[in-house]
Amino acid sequence: MPSHEQMISVVKSYVAAFDSGDAEAVVQLYAADATVEDPIGSPALRGHEAIRQFYQRSMATGAKLRLEGAVRTGGNHAAFAFSAHLDLAGGHKRIDVIDSFRFDAAGKVTEMRAFWGPDNMHGF
Amino acid sequence: MPSHEQMISVVKSYVAAFDSGDAEAVVQLYAADATVEDPIGSPALRGHEAIRQFYQRSMATGAKLRLEGAVRTGGNHAAFAFSAHLDLAGGHKRIDVIDSFRFDAAGKVTEMRAFWGPDNMHGF
Repeated sequence: MPSHEQMISVVKSYVAAFDSGDAEAVVQLYAADATVEDPIGSPALRGHEAIRQFYQRSMATGAKLRLEGAVRTGGNHAAFAFSAHLDLAGGHKRIDVIDSFRFDAAGKVTEMRAFWGPDNMHGF
Repeated sequence: MPSHEQMISVVKSYVAAFDSGDAEAVVQLYAADATVEDPIGSPALRGHEAIRQFYQRSMATGAKLRLEGAVRTGGNHAAFAFSAHLDLAGGHKRIDVIDSFRFDAAGKVTEMRAFWGPDNMHGF
């Protein structure tokens, strides 16, 4: 089971890689057959190629992530609250999100679920 | 699927019932065969009686909950960050937690998972 420090490190790497537009660095945090359900309730994506395409699209919006409060970790899971900020032609937008990560023994993310929906979108 | 407003209402009722020490009011937010995994990674409790006993024990600590940031909702899920505050003989304690709720069509919680662990406990 990954340690608290390992899981915190992955979350921080995830945010930094996202904000620098490095989809490949994000993909490398995931296990080969990992699933991404973003937003929760949508069909899960599976595997590096689908995950890479998803993050390439997400990063193309120019969104930047801001962690809010402590990363919570328990067992082989982490959860963290953040807001995604976008500056578009129509002005500043914000989406409030909570992500959960499940980890394998090697510290790779095997499941990501992003809790957010239309009511968490502001300024759109 | 419950609406955003219904899910928000359940989360607010949950916090209010917890803080008033009303375990039965919390139990009534859950479906009859609901599961509670608190903390995540521990064996899930199932059903009203096990859930009632769990909350009676939790509330006996005198813990009070403080929501942090917006409740996130998507599909039939909600997630919310909060801190639990305890004033014990040894002084003030805080635990940082993120809970996720899954809802059924009637708006009852069918699955609760509480993301926190030893590294989220402060002042103990």
